[in-house]
Amino acid sequence: MEKTNKMEKIFIILLIFVPLSLLAEYIHFSPIVIFVLASLAIIPLAKFIGESTEEISVHTGPALGGLLNATFGNATELIISFFALQAGLTNMVKASITGSIIGNLLLILGMSLFFGGLGKDQQEFNTTAAKTSASTLFLATAAIVMPAVFVLTSDNPSDAVIETLSIAVSVIMAISYLASLLFSLRTHKHLYTADTAECSARWSVKKSVTILLVSTVAVAVMSEVLVGSIEPLAESLGWTELFIGMIFIAIIGNAAEHVSAITIAIKNRMDLSLQIAIGSTTQIAMFVVPVLVFTSYFFETPMNLIFTTFELACIVAAVLMVKSIIEDGKSNWFEGLQLLGTYGIIIVVSFLHP
Amino acid sequence: MEKTNKMEKIFIILLIFVPLSLLAEYIHFSPIVIFVLASLAIIPLAKFIGESTEEISVHTGPALGGLLNATFGNATELIISFFALQAGLTNMVKASITGSIIGNLLLILGMSLFFGGLGKDQQEFNTTAAKTSASTLFLATAAIVMPAVFVLTSDNPSDAVIETLSIAVSVIMAISYLASLLFSLRTHKHLYTADTAECSARWSVKKSVTILLVSTVAVAVMSEVLVGSIEPLAESLGWTELFIGMIFIAIIGNAAEHVSAITIAIKNRMDLSLQIAIGSTTQIAMFVVPVLVFTSYFFETPMNLIFTTFELACIVAAVLMVKSIIEDGKSNWFEGLQLLGTYGIIIVVSFLHP
Amino acid sequence: MEKTNKMEKIFIILLIFVPLSLLAEYIHFSPIVIFVLASLAIIPLAKFIGESTEEISVHTGPALGGLLNATFGNATELIISFFALQAGLTNMVKASITGSIIGNLLLILGMSLFFGGLGKDQQEFNTTAAKTSASTLFLATAAIVMPAVFVLTSDNPSDAVIETLSIAVSVIMAISYLASLLFSLRTHKHLYTADTAECSARWSVKKSVTILLVSTVAVAVMSEVLVGSIEPLAESLGWTELFIGMIFIAIIGNAAEHVSAITIAIKNRMDLSLQIAIGSTTQIAMFVVPVLVFTSYFFETPMNLIFTTFELACIVAAVLMVKSIIEDGKSNWFEGLQLLGTYGIIIVVSFLHP
Repeated sequence: MEKTNKMEKIFIILLIFVPLSLLAEYIHFSPIVIFVLASLAIIPLAKFIGESTEEISVHTGPALGGLLNATFGNATELIISFFALQAGLTNMVKASITGSIIGNLLLILGMSLFFGGLGKDQQEFNTTAAKTSASTLFLATAAIVMPAVFVLTSDNPSDAVIETLSIAVSVIMAISYLASLLFSLRTHKHLYTADTAECSARWSVKKSVTILLVSTVAVAVMSEVLVGSIEPLAESLGWTELFIGMIFIAIIGNAAEHVSAITIAIKNRMDLSLQIAIGSTTQIAMFVVPVLVFTSYFFETPMNLIFTTFELACIVAAVLMVKSIIEDGKSNWFEGLQLLGTYGIIIVVSFLHP
Repeated sequence: MEKTNKMEKIFIILLIFVPLSLLAEYIHFSPIVIFVLASLAIIPLAKFIGESTEEISVHTGPALGGLLNATFGNATELIISFFALQAGLTNMVKASITGSIIGNLLLILGMSLFFGGLGKDQQEFNTTAAKTSASTLFLATAAIVMPAVFVLTSDNPSDAVIETLSIAVSVIMAISYLASLLFSLRTHKHLYTADTAECSARWSVKKSVTILLVSTVAVAVMSEVLVGSIEPLAESLGWTELFIGMIFIAIIGNAAEHVSAITIAIKNRMDLSLQIAIGSTTQIAMFVVPVLVFTSYFFETPMNLIFTTFELACIVAAVLMVKSIIEDGKSNWFEGLQLLGTYGIIIVVSFLHP
Repeated sequence: MEKTNKMEKIFIILLIFVPLSLLAEYIHFSPIVIFVLASLAIIPLAKFIGESTEEISVHTGPALGGLLNATFGNATELIISFFALQAGLTNMVKASITGSIIGNLLLILGMSLFFGGLGKDQQEFNTTAAKTSASTLFLATAAIVMPAVFVLTSDNPSDAVIETLSIAVSVIMAISYLASLLFSLRTHKHLYTADTAECSARWSVKKSVTILLVSTVAVAVMSEVLVGSIEPLAESLGWTELFIGMIFIAIIGNAAEHVSAITIAIKNRMDLSLQIAIGSTTQIAMFVVPVLVFTSYFFETPMNLIFTTFELACIVAAVLMVKSIIEDGKSNWFEGLQLLGTYGIIIVVSFLHP
């Protein structure tokens, strides 16, 4: 309990970066400083979005609560992506989706298994829920790989065809996502750890909703600041949009989940830790991606589903690696390190990638 | 029992499409009508080939019966493919092989797990037989992928080299297939559900052989009609040979198995249902493919083993997806839906593919 | 015991090929004869390196002994590769690495499961150690695939970038390898069969060290002879460096392990047999590869980590196939045959590959 309070205090202190980044933006400070300040400001805000959603879900009961969590769980990624799409950075948005997927699967899960496994012979977890998530990951991978294969094996397909393809595949992903909610919240909810049952509400509904709204608006403002700093940052450091999107934007958007998954793994509650890391991945692939594809048609440059071959290779490598590690329902520190090693290889390659 | 009789009546009624399609062909009706009529005519004929083979195998005993089933189980696909090869449609034949593999793995198995799993918490099945089939699928996938990789990574290989490669790999596939029969019918037959033991013969040997011969000849005639309508059909609807082969020809050739696998899954006999869906796939890959490669050298345009990159991606996606879902020996409706979702994605992509 | 003595006698007799190959080299015999004689000479020498290392490890205790085994276990491959790198045959070295990986996974393991499984219903083995090795294989595969994907998706990357990439990825592989030693020799040593405990030392430390040194020097001399015969051999037979490296050099470098793994599998000690076949593979990928990359910078033509697409396809096919077969902790003869079938397909394709 005390530790939680301490963590909470750190998050409240981090809020200081909200006004700081606004100030830096106002006085046209260097883009690196603005980028760092805005990133640090988003982390506690994302945490408060997550917390207020959970508080509300305690009041609404598990079914509606699960739905709320599933929808608002990726609010930060969604908001940052909206602003990036508006700025025409569609390739960076796709890179950040790739980065969120591999970040959750390799970095978060890797650190969870590594730190969770230190000093223990092995940690165990229920395989049925993990395996269903793994199959969903495979479906998401197929949904991301097949349109790219289409483009690679077609001779200059028209934009209209690619658009049709992106929307049709997104519809299938969205339907599968709704079905997965039906599965995890209704027909097979006993497979999923009932975490909301454990914690009683600390905040009133009114307070929770207020915090949710204020944090969401603040994340939106910070995201606009952050996105505005990316292009000058990329230029001044010589970094590619691929690298910034895949590593930094992805980590910022998922920072709150990172902290939760790892602290929970150290407490040996592996089921919940896996649920956060893998569940968050499938939500990004099956919910965030279709939403971005659909809404992007209201922006100037619509986002299609055509990821680059390099991104596909990263996603396929991450999914196969995680599949291989979780399927026996046991983990140890070395398996965590293997995930981190794979993440390291991908960082190196994407840093050097032109 | 009653239900079986009802099903049988439907199949007998469907026989009306045999003379109808001949009539349509004779009066040069539109190719769409001829295609639909011939397709509907083949479905009951395929069923009677399957049934008469099973009846004969009751008389011959399980060992020879299993061999008969393995050989005649794909008679319909083989016959349609022969006529298509004769018409020079080698690409469509390869597309229909791809379609049979993904149709069996994603559509049939998907519908079996989905409808079988509705209203149940989970369905269970023996994993050893399923896993051996999965390994055979991996071997078949390697046999299909490696020649294509050879062509992609060689600089314009000669037709003679591709021919040698196709035949050498086909020989390895054929040997593995014979070994798999030795495994499933002799050394490890206890792993496979003894279904023939349950049903006593309803037909005499003479009746069975007569029905087998008549159905086979009729399928041959219908296949010729069907294949003749494909090119004008493709032209008039603007569909590609890839799409027609991969979706329609594949479904027609396997329609009887589709019905069996799903009805059996609803009865909760998952082992047999999997055996039909996956066993049929390995038979197509390891038996039908080499037979077509060998015999195609008697036709004008021999068929090589070089599948397109798009077909490979579909096959690899389907095999990995099915592997991921069956390996724990349990299934539920959502896993069936995931297979169907993957199939849907592939349909969309192959429909739009130029 | 008697059998072991008989085996040992065969290895001692094989030593006759050491002077014979020197003689053939001296009188400038045909390269085919020199290649065959030097190959036959290396096999018993590799065996004596292995045996003397094991003898020393009995004296040093399991921790240091395991380290010694891990380092000297691939001495033969390393030495042959050094001479090949010196001769500028970097592509052949990479082909022989690919060949060692698929040879260990498909040929050795395939023969072990096939001959071990003959006449038995199934053989069983501990899955935790096998699965950890499988995950290490996935990591190694990612480390080998990602740099190649980098090159395929970049537009003519400079040599300097490829060099940086190769070294950075090699560092990650080397760290993972050290971690794997920590895992198998310290934190989770109970998972690994304590084989050194069983056999008491037959040789004194002095005798073991002498044999180790003499064998190593002899392997070095033989390797130089062998490597010198490769280019004229390739020319006279019309074989490619890919084929010679991938099939022959790979088999020669691992011949001693081949014999051990198979004889042990027939004695039904599957855990040890798997440990040899898969452990040897991960050692090559995670230890031999980085060492070669690092040391190659002292030679004229440094070796990068960019494998060809064809090699990647072989490695990925082998790793997925083995993963699929070992993960349930059971094996039978047919699974061995499936591995051999995959190996056969790869041999055919690499023989025809230009």
